[in-house]
Amino acid sequence: MKKHTISVLVENRFGVLAHISGLFSARGFNIDSLAVGETEDPTISRMTIVVSGDDRTLEQVTKQLNRLIDVIRVEDLSNRDFIDRELLLFKIETTSKNKDEVKKILKETSAKIIDERESILTVEVSGSKEDINTLFERLAKYKIKELVRTGRIALAKEKE
Amino acid sequence: MKKHTISVLVENRFGVLAHISGLFSARGFNIDSLAVGETEDPTISRMTIVVSGDDRTLEQVTKQLNRLIDVIRVEDLSNRDFIDRELLLFKIETTSKNKDEVKKILKETSAKIIDERESILTVEVSGSKEDINTLFERLAKYKIKELVRTGRIALAKEKE
Repeated sequence: MKKHTISVLVENRFGVLAHISGLFSARGFNIDSLAVGETEDPTISRMTIVVSGDDRTLEQVTKQLNRLIDVIRVEDLSNRDFIDRELLLFKIETTSKNKDEVKKILKETSAKIIDERESILTVEVSGSKEDINTLFERLAKYKIKELVRTGRIALAKEKE
Repeated sequence: MKKHTISVLVENRFGVLAHISGLFSARGFNIDSLAVGETEDPTISRMTIVVSGDDRTLEQVTKQLNRLIDVIRVEDLSNRDFIDRELLLFKIETTSKNKDEVKKILKETSAKIIDERESILTVEVSGSKEDINTLFERLAKYKIKELVRTGRIALAKEKE
């Protein structure tokens, strides 16, 4: 099943999120990630939704979305060149023995330590899917205690 | 109305997002931002929801959430010490005259240029609410063309 990154501009109104996520689930789409927040205009929000599903069903969902009064524009970015990024916060357990090692990995991968306790580092990292995967491959042998991620946001790439 | 930052751990199952966002909207809560993605365990997702509303109604929503079979844990982080961060991507229009000025502001505020065209810069920035506000105050006189934000994610702060 193909992954689709859908960008939906909506009026920042009560119930829109429930309505839209309901449409996807009624059609059998599982939402891999969803991020929603205000745009440059606070009356308008942009939702970035990553879903797996077949092209034809997604086309139907897109049509239904376009019919909703609060939906301003729907774009399937998967058909275009786009830039996507994700943000994660997590806690990693360290010992006096491996702390320097962990810090070195974080530094090399542009992850930021935002809180440090004797045996726990809280870390902020943002980047592309590949950046994030590389970081977690390098941290595989350490214990991640808590993790929260935003889901991906995306913008179409500007043409040359 | 007080802002609440709610962290909800859920089974990564079909329809959970629609169900939960529906609960909030049925109770008259507008969701300011919502971010959902997988945790350290891919069968479990964490939703971070920022809502405005009164304490008593929120308590009722929290109770209802706790009753849902797919909900593992609900935490109102507003009652605790927490760290929150947000990620934004945006495009800013520049001219040959002001480009260096814009770049200087971006550099000083740790925002990253991830794509550069003659008259448009695409920028990635993450940080606390204050960091993001500071950046946009400094960019106020420039034209922001497109903007997408993840909504806030948060983790409880480790105790001393």
